Amino acid sequence: MAVHGGNTEEIARKYKLNPSEIIDFSANINPLGISENVKKAMIDAIDKVVKYPDITYFDLKNSIGEFEKINTRNITLGNGAAEVIFNIVRALKPKKALLPAPTFSEYEEAILSIDGEIEYYNLKESKNFNLDNEFIGNIKNNIDIVFICNPNNPTGVLTTNEFIKKVLNKSILTNTIVVIDESFLDFVKDNKEYSSNKLLNDYKNLIIVKSLTKFFAIPGARIGYGLCSNKEIMDKINKILVPWSINVIAAEGITKGLTEKQYIKKSIEYIEDEKEYLYSALKQIKYLYVFEPSVNFIMFKILTNLDLKGELIKRKILVRSCDNYIGLDNSFYRVAVRTREENNKLIAELKHILFDK
Amino acid sequence: MAVHGGNTEEIARKYKLNPSEIIDFSANINPLGISENVKKAMIDAIDKVVKYPDITYFDLKNSIGEFEKINTRNITLGNGAAEVIFNIVRALKPKKALLPAPTFSEYEEAILSIDGEIEYYNLKESKNFNLDNEFIGNIKNNIDIVFICNPNNPTGVLTTNEFIKKVLNKSILTNTIVVIDESFLDFVKDNKEYSSNKLLNDYKNLIIVKSLTKFFAIPGARIGYGLCSNKEIMDKINKILVPWSINVIAAEGITKGLTEKQYIKKSIEYIEDEKEYLYSALKQIKYLYVFEPSVNFIMFKILTNLDLKGELIKRKILVRSCDNYIGLDNSFYRVAVRTREENNKLIAELKHILFDK
Repeated sequence: MAVHGGNTEEIARKYKLNPSEIIDFSANINPLGISENVKKAMIDAIDKVVKYPDITYFDLKNSIGEFEKINTRNITLGNGAAEVIFNIVRALKPKKALLPAPTFSEYEEAILSIDGEIEYYNLKESKNFNLDNEFIGNIKNNIDIVFICNPNNPTGVLTTNEFIKKVLNKSILTNTIVVIDESFLDFVKDNKEYSSNKLLNDYKNLIIVKSLTKFFAIPGARIGYGLCSNKEIMDKINKILVPWSINVIAAEGITKGLTEKQYIKKSIEYIEDEKEYLYSALKQIKYLYVFEPSVNFIMFKILTNLDLKGELIKRKILVRSCDNYIGLDNSFYRVAVRTREENNKLIAELKHILFDK
Repeated sequence: MAVHGGNTEEIARKYKLNPSEIIDFSANINPLGISENVKKAMIDAIDKVVKYPDITYFDLKNSIGEFEKINTRNITLGNGAAEVIFNIVRALKPKKALLPAPTFSEYEEAILSIDGEIEYYNLKESKNFNLDNEFIGNIKNNIDIVFICNPNNPTGVLTTNEFIKKVLNKSILTNTIVVIDESFLDFVKDNKEYSSNKLLNDYKNLIIVKSLTKFFAIPGARIGYGLCSNKEIMDKINKILVPWSINVIAAEGITKGLTEKQYIKKSIEYIEDEKEYLYSALKQIKYLYVFEPSVNFIMFKILTNLDLKGELIKRKILVRSCDNYIGLDNSFYRVAVRTREENNKLIAELKHILFDK
């Protein structure tokens, strides 16, 4: 099983801390926390757990369909975006995948789980880890599937629709499926401009993956979905689905969440401001090179030899070391954008640690 | 996707009813409903959904380990017993499975999802659908996996440890994995006597599947697990697991549930009495042949030509027609054991329908 952020329980056991006293910058969750209405919907849903979920997820699919402006037959649900990713791989059984590096590790995990082969495309630090035309050149006939995380985790790089169209056009020629993981895109102010949703009808080789639980701050509840307009692909995915895979609490929470226009707007604005604040402050700290963020997390590189994660956990702050990302090493770290107070605490501790060096 | 009971939402849409006014005898859930302490634990868990589940499920595995008296490394968790069944099949990739018929349909669904072949062993109505030595004779070298649901759904037939040992011993010779699904066994008074748990150390070809959500009346929350003492099998299963597949609400609910000794005892006693009451009453209704139940559901056969499910839904009672079980037909029905009042309502309506014929 891959190493991920958000493992405060594990860290707390290791360092003999109380999990609740750790400020967790390692998981990228909406710092505004759960919306009161979503919380209420989930508490109310506890009264419904005595029944099985609706095996067809009729209401849930309708809510997502309305939110995404898409026909419900083009929606596939999962127990978290992670299950959607695994379901795609299990259904399509790609022999070989092309993955940018660094990126979210579950594409790799899913491919390895079916004994698939992986070709990595090393994103260049000199280009701030942006995708480039050389990547498109690597999409060849032997590549069955490509994954692009947009914005990319952990680098924060946003890829334009224009570039994704080039990937899709090339992939049609090579008979390659393109999976765009937009799990963090809802945090972007101009998310509609960047989303590949509008390309779904034109590109039958496109699948979009979404996890709304980071945005709605309910990752412990588990829900995610995929979008695809290709009936053949959807039939293959439907064939391998485990029944009742979305629990009623997550289903009711997300159904409510999708209608929370005020909370959605407020969250985007908050991240927009706070991301800039944290980015500016981090840039002023010596020994740090900070990559330009686009959403609710920021990657930076430490330019001196130091176990920053170890130093910070002594101060009860957990950050994500990027040492286990292919293409990065232990000089890279990822931090979530949290509340002003928490961000200030991170900034202050980083200054202490690095200025004292 | 297979047809199952418990689909009151779907039925309500079809018959234009309010789902809450349907008495659902089609899903086999503990009629005592959710324990107050489990409910409280789940509501409290809503405050924890802002964090990812502990990816190692350290506390949850310890709770189950203590309940099952088993080392936690021999436990595999799933998002419902259904996912455990699919995980076993995905990990072990059996080319050919032997399934008794009738039985729970998800073994078949899981095998078909990986394009495996299925050999059915037709249980004999003349033997009240009990497993027999002929079944063991059908375990041959070409059979990679056998599923036995104990007690069997929908027939209610309990299989003894003595018989299961014979299955296991034969299966060692043929290199066959034996999966015993004990999802309803907790409702049986002498469940320890019937459980294959005590065989786990001696038989490395044995996997037990359990769903506690029927017993604790929380099927909408999704959780289940498997038990196996074979490291090679566990490694294969661990390799294909989707991370974070158990949500924190189900995890906290079950952790509490496993300590609820009073509720567990009361539930078993209630089912024991009420099952006998309903069984006796059903036996007295003309045109019904009732199979001896062992747990919280009863199968019967209707000896006259009638759409009983259709007649009952007019009276806002939902029963499980067994017409889509291989080996049964539309004369067989399964009903859950519910509360005395609800059971009396079922009995009264059945009498109306059948006496008026």
